[in-house]
Amino acid sequence: MNAIIDENIDDIIDFIKEHFENNRIDEIKNIIEKMHPVDLADVLMELSDENRLNFLNLLSWEDSSEVLSELGPESFSEVLELLGKDKKTYVLDRMSQDDIVDKLGELEEDRRKEIIAYLDIENARDVRELLVYDEDTAGGIMTKDFISLKSDYTIYKAIETLRKTEVDNETIYYVYVTDLEERLVGVISLRELIIAKPNQLISEIMNENVISVTTSDDQEEVARIVSKYDLLVIPVTDNDGVLSGIITMDDIIDVIEEEATEDILKFAGSSDLEDFDEENFGMRILMSVRSRLPWLIITLFGGLFTSHIVSNFQGVINSNTTLAMFMPLLAGMGGNVGTQSSTLTVRSIAVDQIRGKEVLLTIFQEGIVGISIGIVCSIIVAISSFYLKGDILMSLIVGVAMMSNIVTAATIGTMVPIVFKKIGVDPAVASAPFISTTVDITGLTIYFTLATLMMKAWL
Amino acid sequence: MNAIIDENIDDIIDFIKEHFENNRIDEIKNIIEKMHPVDLADVLMELSDENRLNFLNLLSWEDSSEVLSELGPESFSEVLELLGKDKKTYVLDRMSQDDIVDKLGELEEDRRKEIIAYLDIENARDVRELLVYDEDTAGGIMTKDFISLKSDYTIYKAIETLRKTEVDNETIYYVYVTDLEERLVGVISLRELIIAKPNQLISEIMNENVISVTTSDDQEEVARIVSKYDLLVIPVTDNDGVLSGIITMDDIIDVIEEEATEDILKFAGSSDLEDFDEENFGMRILMSVRSRLPWLIITLFGGLFTSHIVSNFQGVINSNTTLAMFMPLLAGMGGNVGTQSSTLTVRSIAVDQIRGKEVLLTIFQEGIVGISIGIVCSIIVAISSFYLKGDILMSLIVGVAMMSNIVTAATIGTMVPIVFKKIGVDPAVASAPFISTTVDITGLTIYFTLATLMMKAWL
Repeated sequence: MNAIIDENIDDIIDFIKEHFENNRIDEIKNIIEKMHPVDLADVLMELSDENRLNFLNLLSWEDSSEVLSELGPESFSEVLELLGKDKKTYVLDRMSQDDIVDKLGELEEDRRKEIIAYLDIENARDVRELLVYDEDTAGGIMTKDFISLKSDYTIYKAIETLRKTEVDNETIYYVYVTDLEERLVGVISLRELIIAKPNQLISEIMNENVISVTTSDDQEEVARIVSKYDLLVIPVTDNDGVLSGIITMDDIIDVIEEEATEDILKFAGSSDLEDFDEENFGMRILMSVRSRLPWLIITLFGGLFTSHIVSNFQGVINSNTTLAMFMPLLAGMGGNVGTQSSTLTVRSIAVDQIRGKEVLLTIFQEGIVGISIGIVCSIIVAISSFYLKGDILMSLIVGVAMMSNIVTAATIGTMVPIVFKKIGVDPAVASAPFISTTVDITGLTIYFTLATLMMKAWL
Repeated sequence: MNAIIDENIDDIIDFIKEHFENNRIDEIKNIIEKMHPVDLADVLMELSDENRLNFLNLLSWEDSSEVLSELGPESFSEVLELLGKDKKTYVLDRMSQDDIVDKLGELEEDRRKEIIAYLDIENARDVRELLVYDEDTAGGIMTKDFISLKSDYTIYKAIETLRKTEVDNETIYYVYVTDLEERLVGVISLRELIIAKPNQLISEIMNENVISVTTSDDQEEVARIVSKYDLLVIPVTDNDGVLSGIITMDDIIDVIEEEATEDILKFAGSSDLEDFDEENFGMRILMSVRSRLPWLIITLFGGLFTSHIVSNFQGVINSNTTLAMFMPLLAGMGGNVGTQSSTLTVRSIAVDQIRGKEVLLTIFQEGIVGISIGIVCSIIVAISSFYLKGDILMSLIVGVAMMSNIVTAATIGTMVPIVFKKIGVDPAVASAPFISTTVDITGLTIYFTLATLMMKAWL
């Protein structure tokens, strides 16, 4: 029997709604039994308030807790309110701390307090402590729900302790070892515990080379380390080396996806997608405008500067207005090539593929790529423009300008992110709008200068 | 004592080279003892052939095996050759199958056979089988190094079996349960095994709702499922439900990062970064040109079409060549806004944030964002152009054109990916070059049409 997963969730939602209407509860039960909490959460949010409660009553309390874990902050707060006091307490008690903290972090102060009041004392203390950390740091994504043992335990005592400890499944695969001051001194995998002899000491078999991060480390750096060293869990210590929490893979994957989104949007000269989580339509508009406008205004002034340059060449345009016709083509192709080069470079820097001596080689390589692309494009454009206008001088001007423009664009696109990186500016600032605008300026200057010179020489 | 990780790897490399020269082996030993195999692999590849062997001899055979796992295919093949026959066998035996398969997949047929000859019979059979799968599928990234138990085992027998089985650490946290025909019927976590009573049967405590994929599933889909359902490991079955392998998190993270890179590059109208792995400089150039040129040629013809449209308006340009001056500004801003909108939309589709009824709302939202941005930008541009040229008619034309252009660009940038998605084309085709070119055409048409009309009305 296999699990039902999300492929046909919309059909399942319709099925469940229909069967609630007809009061055919058993058939709903049959289907939700095979479903995963992630999908049950999707279904839940599509139901009316009344049916939400009916739906939750079909689930075990434990499953209810898992479903609530999967909800967004606002939905979580809403659905929690539907439950009775005992179930509230049970559900919250079963949720992992990092999930609770993620949700509480987004709620109003008052609501936060109300919810924390349902937690047991120890849990409430942990959650309050976790809420203090910046949400982009290791402290902000860790959970305090981990197992630590003292290094002088025997394996037998360790396994007995594990049997008695109630913790989340996700946090069990490594057991951390601390000294008397709670400082992290080693790690041992559950597997190693099982195969060890019962009377050995933990200190004899533990691995002392623990890779850990500190609470204030940036989540992006944490993700990089976990990904590089293929870890399943990473322990977090405070500045004194005291074990403060652990971060599990599911949170790391979220960070990696978040960062990829951020990189993609930065690249388009925009900041974040957060507005999609926002429920209020007006706020979404406002946040979207706010994240996009700054870049646009900068490039607007860049564009005005380009206009100013073009106006300096008004004489040559006046003498042959056909020149104006090829402006968008030249500016556009420069922008495209520049954008390609800068994107490749920014991504290579991000995934650590350009290091030390590779830099010069990369610039040289992009130069040659630019020349190759330039040759192909300038031949096509020279022939096509001759076909369009029948003016051999114009075709020559456009062809040569295209060639110079593409090579310049490829070089600028590659060098700007590298230089930014060197001087400590985020290379992603070399976004598509930024590069396009820069390349417009150089490309059109080249074009009109060439046109002026070649027309003089020709006549 | 903490592990030394990568922060100062270049210094460590220098340190080790220097100490090899002076034959101060003990100090090298002290430092590498605290290093992770990932970093040891980086160091290894910076050393001369002779010192590579010396370096490997300082490591235990087990550590050598882990270091070799971390090398790229070519480097792996080279370093393996340095080792004696026994150590070769040991190292290969200790490596995880998916790592061996990844490397062999990139090597020549002959070399592949040579290396497989060092594997034990069972391992060689598994590796040959894994090499058959397409590298982008579940089969291509899975390992056969998993533990499965029969459902009628008692917990006691299960734990005894685990104690005796030698498998990779990374693959132990879930134990899969199969029936007599080796079909996957359940899963049980190591944690559940430990806390269960020894005389219970596996079938009593196993979870029957196993989320699994089949060997031919696309790796991107596998990553999506693992990420959505927060799994640590996912089992892979063949079409008959027979358990064929498992995929672990480290491979999933690699897939997620690979796909993010692919998305970012697609967005710039380019295909992949693979050329950075290629050792041969000429090949890198060729692959880079080949991945970038197709998009550029398409947009080149788009650009020529734009030129053709501009030439239709040559009359109005002739009558006022100042119009030419603002062409790059208008085309550029349209491209920037369009690129922002399309990127936001493509990413939202990719992370599943635009579903069903959200579509209309998204288009409507982007329209309003476009209008807001348009108002701000057109006011700035009207004032600035009046300041530059002192021509009130021209400022009006440019301002109104900017407004219309930005709203059109935002709408096109949002709708194109959505329409592509609907008709089954990859939304990422709506890349920056594609949208810029499209928006150039609409933007300049709007500009010159407005100019023609307004100049007529004014005179």
